[in-house]
Amino acid sequence: MAIAYSTQRILEILGNDCESVGAYDGLISGIASLSEAIAGDLSFLGNPKYRASVARSKASILLVPRDYEGLPQAGQLYLKLDNPSFALALICRDIEGMLLPKPPTGIHPSAVIEADAEISPEASIGAFCYVGSGASVGAAVLESHVTVGRSARIADGSYLFSKASVGDYCEIGLRNRLLAGCVIGSDGYGYEFLDGAHQRVPQIGNVVTGADVDVGANTTIDRARFGSTLIGEGTKIDNQVQIAHNVRVGRHCLIVAQVGISGSSVLGDGVIVGGQAGIAGHLKVGSGAMIAGGTAVVSDIEAQTKVRGYPAMPMMLFNRMAVLQRKLPDLFKRFDQLEKSLESLQNQSR
Amino acid sequence: MAIAYSTQRILEILGNDCESVGAYDGLISGIASLSEAIAGDLSFLGNPKYRASVARSKASILLVPRDYEGLPQAGQLYLKLDNPSFALALICRDIEGMLLPKPPTGIHPSAVIEADAEISPEASIGAFCYVGSGASVGAAVLESHVTVGRSARIADGSYLFSKASVGDYCEIGLRNRLLAGCVIGSDGYGYEFLDGAHQRVPQIGNVVTGADVDVGANTTIDRARFGSTLIGEGTKIDNQVQIAHNVRVGRHCLIVAQVGISGSSVLGDGVIVGGQAGIAGHLKVGSGAMIAGGTAVVSDIEAQTKVRGYPAMPMMLFNRMAVLQRKLPDLFKRFDQLEKSLESLQNQSR
Amino acid sequence: MAIAYSTQRILEILGNDCESVGAYDGLISGIASLSEAIAGDLSFLGNPKYRASVARSKASILLVPRDYEGLPQAGQLYLKLDNPSFALALICRDIEGMLLPKPPTGIHPSAVIEADAEISPEASIGAFCYVGSGASVGAAVLESHVTVGRSARIADGSYLFSKASVGDYCEIGLRNRLLAGCVIGSDGYGYEFLDGAHQRVPQIGNVVTGADVDVGANTTIDRARFGSTLIGEGTKIDNQVQIAHNVRVGRHCLIVAQVGISGSSVLGDGVIVGGQAGIAGHLKVGSGAMIAGGTAVVSDIEAQTKVRGYPAMPMMLFNRMAVLQRKLPDLFKRFDQLEKSLESLQNQSR
Repeated sequence: MAIAYSTQRILEILGNDCESVGAYDGLISGIASLSEAIAGDLSFLGNPKYRASVARSKASILLVPRDYEGLPQAGQLYLKLDNPSFALALICRDIEGMLLPKPPTGIHPSAVIEADAEISPEASIGAFCYVGSGASVGAAVLESHVTVGRSARIADGSYLFSKASVGDYCEIGLRNRLLAGCVIGSDGYGYEFLDGAHQRVPQIGNVVTGADVDVGANTTIDRARFGSTLIGEGTKIDNQVQIAHNVRVGRHCLIVAQVGISGSSVLGDGVIVGGQAGIAGHLKVGSGAMIAGGTAVVSDIEAQTKVRGYPAMPMMLFNRMAVLQRKLPDLFKRFDQLEKSLESLQNQSR
Repeated sequence: MAIAYSTQRILEILGNDCESVGAYDGLISGIASLSEAIAGDLSFLGNPKYRASVARSKASILLVPRDYEGLPQAGQLYLKLDNPSFALALICRDIEGMLLPKPPTGIHPSAVIEADAEISPEASIGAFCYVGSGASVGAAVLESHVTVGRSARIADGSYLFSKASVGDYCEIGLRNRLLAGCVIGSDGYGYEFLDGAHQRVPQIGNVVTGADVDVGANTTIDRARFGSTLIGEGTKIDNQVQIAHNVRVGRHCLIVAQVGISGSSVLGDGVIVGGQAGIAGHLKVGSGAMIAGGTAVVSDIEAQTKVRGYPAMPMMLFNRMAVLQRKLPDLFKRFDQLEKSLESLQNQSR
Repeated sequence: MAIAYSTQRILEILGNDCESVGAYDGLISGIASLSEAIAGDLSFLGNPKYRASVARSKASILLVPRDYEGLPQAGQLYLKLDNPSFALALICRDIEGMLLPKPPTGIHPSAVIEADAEISPEASIGAFCYVGSGASVGAAVLESHVTVGRSARIADGSYLFSKASVGDYCEIGLRNRLLAGCVIGSDGYGYEFLDGAHQRVPQIGNVVTGADVDVGANTTIDRARFGSTLIGEGTKIDNQVQIAHNVRVGRHCLIVAQVGISGSSVLGDGVIVGGQAGIAGHLKVGSGAMIAGGTAVVSDIEAQTKVRGYPAMPMMLFNRMAVLQRKLPDLFKRFDQLEKSLESLQNQSR
C-alpha cells in the first residue's frame, strides 16, 4: 500500500498547534513504531516508556510531546504536540480516506434489487448485492455480495462490507459498520423434544441495532424467538462473536473476538467482555462489569465488578487461586509430611 | 416487523379445544412475555412460576392453562388450553409462514447453473447462486449467493440460506436447514511434516448429512480425508461450530454454538454438547452423554454420563471442585497454621 | 463420490518399488480403514498397532509394509512397500486430481473485474467474483463469489475457494489455499474512549501472507493498524481462527481451529497452537513452542516449551495439577481430620 504523503499535508492536518524542530524534505511512505521505522516513515511517541527510543529511531518525521527535549538528527523533523497519539489518529484518518475512498453512489448493474425495495439515491450498492422485497437502504455503502433480506432496514451512514448478510425484517441503525461475512438475523437455536425428535421452535423476531454499532467479520447475531435481539448504541463487537436469540446488549459495550452469549441474557451499558468468554443463557450482567477473556459466566454478574475464571469468580479471587493452584503439588507433599509427623507424635503420646 | 393478526385467526389455529374468557376486539400486533407485553400483544403462561404475572400483564390475549383461575381485565381475552407453549408454537409457525413466505419455484435469471447439473422444477434458486457440474438440487430452496459444488446433492425439502456453501461431492439430506454462511465440505486439516515443511494430505472424502439436520450460521464441517464426515438424522448444530474431517455425529444430537470437534471423533445418538466445548481427536462419546459448556474433552466419555471441566471430569466432581477451589486461599492459610501448631507440639514433646 | 480406479493405475502411481502378493481383478471404488473397508476398497496398514486387523480386512487391495508376513485371501491383493502411508497419499493425490480437476483458465462472464485490475491469462476466475480497482491476480484459481479488494495482490498458484474475501491492499503469497468464507483484511478492532463513546482508530495497514500458507474456512485475519499483519511462509491455519491486527505469525506454524490471537502478538517459527487456545495481546511466543488446546496464554512463552491451562503453565505442571485437582475433595476431608487429631493431641498435652 503505497502512501506518498508530504510534510506540508501533515502540517495542514495538525494545524497551527504544532511546533517544528528540524526538517525533512521528502515524502512519507509509511507509518511505523519508533524501533521499526525506516527512512521515509512517520513515527510517534505515544507511551512515555518508549521515550529512550526516540533518539535511535530512523523515522523521518516524529510526533513527540511538547516536553520532549532531544533534538532531531540531520534530515529528521520533530513535530511537538500536546497529544501525539491523537495527532497520529488524525493523520491516519486522512490516509484512510485516501486509501479507501468511499465508493460512488448508485447501484451496480449486477446488483439485484426487488421491485418494491427502497434505495436512497445517496446509497452505494456494489456488485452482486441482493436487496429483498420491502427492504429499505438509506445513504449507506454496500460493498459486493451483500444480502439485505425482506423488509430489512439499513439506516444512513452505515457501511456493509463484502458478504455481510442482514436477515429478513432486521433493522440496522445509523452509522453501523458490518464487517465482511457477518450474519445478522440468522434463526435462533430453539428446539422442543417431541415425538422422539427435536422440533424447531419458530423464530419470528428480528435483530435491531442502535446507532454507531460495529459488528466484526463472520460474527453471527440471531433473530429473536419473538420481539427483538437488541444491540445498544455505540457497542463494538469484534470478529467471530456469537450472540443468540433475544439477547440484549446495552450501550457502549466492547465484546471481543470469539465471545459467545447465550439466549435471553441481558448486558447493561459499558460492559466489557474479553475474548473467548462465554455467557450462559437467561443471565444479567450489570453495567460496567468486566468479564476477562476465557471466562465462563454461569450466574448473574453485579454491575461494576470484574470476574474471571471457569466458572467465573471475582477477579481478585481468581488471581489468588491461579497462584495457589501452581502450589498444589507442593501442598500435597507438605500434607503427606504433616500427616506422618502427626502420626509419630500420636504414637509418642500413647 | 408488522404483524396484524385477528382473534378469529388465532381461534382457527387453536381449534375447538380452547375456552374463551373475556373478549378482545382489536388486532394482535406482537408477541411478548407476560411482563413485557403491551396492549395489542399476545402473551402466554408457559412456566407455572410466572403464574402471578398473568394478572398484571398488559397483553390483550393471553394463553393460559385450563386450571388458571384468574379473570381477564376489561378488553382482555384469556384462552384456556391444555398446553399454552405448544399453542404458542402453532401460532408462531403460522406467523412465520406469513412473514417469511416460501420463495416461488424457479431459477433466478442471475443464477449460474452448470449445464449438466440437475435442478428439480420444484426448486427455488435465488439470485447469484452457483450450482456446479453434475450437482443435483431437489425440491429445495436456495436463497441468494448459495454455492453447490461439483456433483453435490441437495435433497428435497432443504432450505439453504444466503451464502451457505456445499462443497464438491457433499450430500445434504432431506429437510436440512443450512443457515447463512455455513461451509459444508471444506478441506480437512491434515498435514505431514516432510522435507522441512507441512505437506498437505489430500482430502478426497465428503460430508453426508441425514434427514432433518440443521446447521448454524458460519458453522464449518470439513470433508473426510477419505470416506465421509457424517452428521446423523435429526441432529441440530448451532452457529460457529467446527466439525473436523471424518467426525461422525449420531442422530438427534444438539451441538451448541462455538463447539469444536476434532478429527475422527465419534458421537453416539442424543449427545448434547454445550457452547464452546471442545472434543479432541479420535475419541468416542457415548449415546446420551451430556458435555457442559466450555468443557475440554480429552478422553472417551461413557454413554449417559455428564461431564464438565478443563479437562473434562464427572459433573458432580466438577461442581464439588468448583466450590472447593474458591476455598483454596483459606486452605493454604489453615495449613500454615496447622504446621505451626504441630511444630510447637513437637517442640513441647521433645 | 464414485471412484473407479484400476489396479494397473495404482501400480503406475506406486512405481516399480512395490511387490505384489495375490491378485484383484476388479476396480477400486473407495478407500477405507482396515476394519471398515468392504470389497472394492483400498486400505492400508499405516500404524503398526493395527497389524492384527490386516488379516480380517475385507479390502480388495491392501498397502502393507515389506515385513508384513500374512497372506492375502482369495481375490485380494497385497502391495508391499517401504511406506504405506506415503503410498496412500500419492494415490489420494491422484484421485484428488481426478475428482477435483483444476478449473479452466479464463474469466467467467458473470465476474466483475474493475477496469484497471490486472488478471493473468493463466488465472481462473469463477462466477460472481469481484476484483477491485488496481488489484492483480496471478496464475491463481478463484472459485465462485470470491472478493479481491482494491489494490490487493494474489500470487501465482494460489487457490481461493468459494466466498473467500481478500481485503483492500492485502497481499497473498505464492500457492496459498484460502478456504471458503475466510476473511483476510477485515478492520482491526481498535477504539479509544473519548467524549463518552468508543471512537474507531483508523486501520490503514494490510495483511501479507508468505508462500504456501493455508487459511481455513471462515477464519478471519485483521489488517494492521499500520504496517502489516504477517503470516509466515508454510504456516497452516485451520477453520474459524481469529488473528487480530498487527499479529506476526512465523514460518511453518500450525494453528488449529477456533484459536484466537490478540493484537500485536508475535509467534516465532514452528509454533503449534492447539484448538480453541487463546493468546492475549502484545505477547511473544518463542519458536517451537507448543500451546495445548484450550490454553489461555497471558504472558510470554519461551521457545521450545510446552504449555497448557487456564492460565497457561508448563504442561508437566498442568498435568500434575489436573490429577491433584480431582483429589481436592479428599484433601479437604483429610485436612479436617488432621485438624481434629491435632486438637485432641493439644488437649492431651495441656
